[in-house]
Amino acid sequence: MAKASGIVALLTDYGLQDSYVGILKGALLSVNPAARLVDITHEIPPQDVREGSRVLSAARAYFPVGTVFVAVVDPGVGTDRAILGVETDRHFFLAPDNGLLGFLDRTGRIRRIVRVTETRYFLKPVSRTFHGRDIFAPVAAHLAKGLDLSKLGPGIGRMTTAETVAPRKSAGGGIEGEVVSIDRFGNLITNIPGELLPASDGVRITVGRRVVRALSRSYADAKKGALLALVGSTGHLEISVNQGSARKAARIQRGDRVLVTRTRG
Amino acid sequence: MAKASGIVALLTDYGLQDSYVGILKGALLSVNPAARLVDITHEIPPQDVREGSRVLSAARAYFPVGTVFVAVVDPGVGTDRAILGVETDRHFFLAPDNGLLGFLDRTGRIRRIVRVTETRYFLKPVSRTFHGRDIFAPVAAHLAKGLDLSKLGPGIGRMTTAETVAPRKSAGGGIEGEVVSIDRFGNLITNIPGELLPASDGVRITVGRRVVRALSRSYADAKKGALLALVGSTGHLEISVNQGSARKAARIQRGDRVLVTRTRG
Amino acid sequence: MAKASGIVALLTDYGLQDSYVGILKGALLSVNPAARLVDITHEIPPQDVREGSRVLSAARAYFPVGTVFVAVVDPGVGTDRAILGVETDRHFFLAPDNGLLGFLDRTGRIRRIVRVTETRYFLKPVSRTFHGRDIFAPVAAHLAKGLDLSKLGPGIGRMTTAETVAPRKSAGGGIEGEVVSIDRFGNLITNIPGELLPASDGVRITVGRRVVRALSRSYADAKKGALLALVGSTGHLEISVNQGSARKAARIQRGDRVLVTRTRG
Repeated sequence: MAKASGIVALLTDYGLQDSYVGILKGALLSVNPAARLVDITHEIPPQDVREGSRVLSAARAYFPVGTVFVAVVDPGVGTDRAILGVETDRHFFLAPDNGLLGFLDRTGRIRRIVRVTETRYFLKPVSRTFHGRDIFAPVAAHLAKGLDLSKLGPGIGRMTTAETVAPRKSAGGGIEGEVVSIDRFGNLITNIPGELLPASDGVRITVGRRVVRALSRSYADAKKGALLALVGSTGHLEISVNQGSARKAARIQRGDRVLVTRTRG
Repeated sequence: MAKASGIVALLTDYGLQDSYVGILKGALLSVNPAARLVDITHEIPPQDVREGSRVLSAARAYFPVGTVFVAVVDPGVGTDRAILGVETDRHFFLAPDNGLLGFLDRTGRIRRIVRVTETRYFLKPVSRTFHGRDIFAPVAAHLAKGLDLSKLGPGIGRMTTAETVAPRKSAGGGIEGEVVSIDRFGNLITNIPGELLPASDGVRITVGRRVVRALSRSYADAKKGALLALVGSTGHLEISVNQGSARKAARIQRGDRVLVTRTRG
Repeated sequence: MAKASGIVALLTDYGLQDSYVGILKGALLSVNPAARLVDITHEIPPQDVREGSRVLSAARAYFPVGTVFVAVVDPGVGTDRAILGVETDRHFFLAPDNGLLGFLDRTGRIRRIVRVTETRYFLKPVSRTFHGRDIFAPVAAHLAKGLDLSKLGPGIGRMTTAETVAPRKSAGGGIEGEVVSIDRFGNLITNIPGELLPASDGVRITVGRRVVRALSRSYADAKKGALLALVGSTGHLEISVNQGSARKAARIQRGDRVLVTRTRG
């Protein structure tokens, strides 16, 4: 079983414009002044559980054993939706039971799941609008101090699974996926795992009205300004422009379709 | 009296686009490498002392006893405006004497106020444009190490009080307030304290051309997309949209009027 | 020689919207959980090596002796461009060899430069698109733990120097520079060092269609809303507006020309 490292990693849709993240951190340090806080990101689009789940799923492997992850994208705050505590072979997770941790079902080595109900670990009074401050922060503080997960509430058998958007086989034998995220550089991140792609350069990738006819290994494999495709740092197909923005070049939005077909081989 | 915890909480209008916050932190750690830094927010609108004061006032209670707060929203940097050091029963504060700490007058348990004048704790030379780096950072570093506040300069009796925008009674016996802030989610945060609101659902809240006829307890009490009103996490009336943006729905800006009337009871 | 302090200062063009910075930090803490991370900024414009270099050059002096700086603005990621490790009399630096550290050539007291090649300190497998996570983070973690720089790879004699935009003498005996950066407040930061300016008030500064006829010492020396010029916190000429935005007032963009002439004396 994982042993808490004292490191707490935070992912929310709170943004940095307001003081919500700062207040959550203050509340956490009030319980555990020795906790060491790391931001994964706070710029998940508001209430976008699916994107929060995707980002957390891709980030978690790079954090130390014993990290406590606090993930708050929580359209149901103040309702009777459950709050989950999960322990895997490496990490601890706290999140609303809305699919945010659904990826653990498929890939995590889950040891225990509890429903967080022990109000003795909460800040009082608990508001109906800011559980990040009143529940997630103090509970994470206790976990990071070494509190056993089972103290937080009753064990449960399963959690809400996430809606995922899986790529599917297209009519012509290709793969049809979509752009699930666009990063700061304008890279188009798709839901097509690298291992589904043909190994050869006999590939044709269509995104909007643009076509890419090979897989690059790095951005600089293509000429400056040219559209390219590669397997990005999350292991999925990405469409990029060397020193430019694929979002601008291909006029693409999140959710747009990406089609991969094999041209030979 | 409070004892420094080694935690320093920062609130500025510096933004994160530039390196001002990073440099302030570097200067602080140069004096006190063991200090533990927490950002409240750096996105206070430029020179908006009133908003900085509101945010700090709402955030401070959630930070550990012994936290040193550094608040820099400082249109008068380089003039002879004073820099204040304040000790309350729980915390330490450093800020320009421009009203930023005015809320302490009303609600803080102030033990001491000093004018920060002891240049031995400053970085040399002191610029006329970046006191965050040259004065606030090193002085906070010393306070967080346990330096007695009285060493920073002469005690003074009072500070500049803040301009506050208090709600007032309206002609018809209602309460007239205003939207003082709009958060990332588009929630409209007003200056009307929850305790001034009628307890019953006999209430009518007018904001722009929109009317809300009940108080909700949580966002999810209303239908998805519906305008609602509740007492938010700062204890003030907020106008929100469940899983949407009240700013967009009601076409409201900061400073717009909010009227609360009692419809019965 | 500098001794590592355990503090790691980060400057990238990754932005905070995505989780790249968070993942880099996770990877770093996985190797060295005791490292203390400070953000200089992550909002360097994408691939803007010159601006990254300017910001790092201005910030570094304010960080503790023994800080490890990690600077990643890296259009050549995945190519055979070198990664540099540099030790000065005060600090350690890791960056791609693309000019980002060029300022050290002119002003740093360099003790050693190595090409970082020892893959034993890298995360495996090393991607072709995210060396921040796979190389910079774990190598910085080792340096911050006290690993000797010479263990990272072979010593080399010199690095790529930066393109710099130096001010030049203009036809009429004045100085012609340019706006190299515009900060959050709309201050126009130029490449003209303060020591090149006339000491007297016999100066005429032209930026776009606007003229400033004196040097101020602080923002508040000018009337609210008035355009002014001063030597800013980086030691360079800045054009500002007291409690306003010089960018808006003068309708200026990065790269626009600034002319300083002496009117008498």
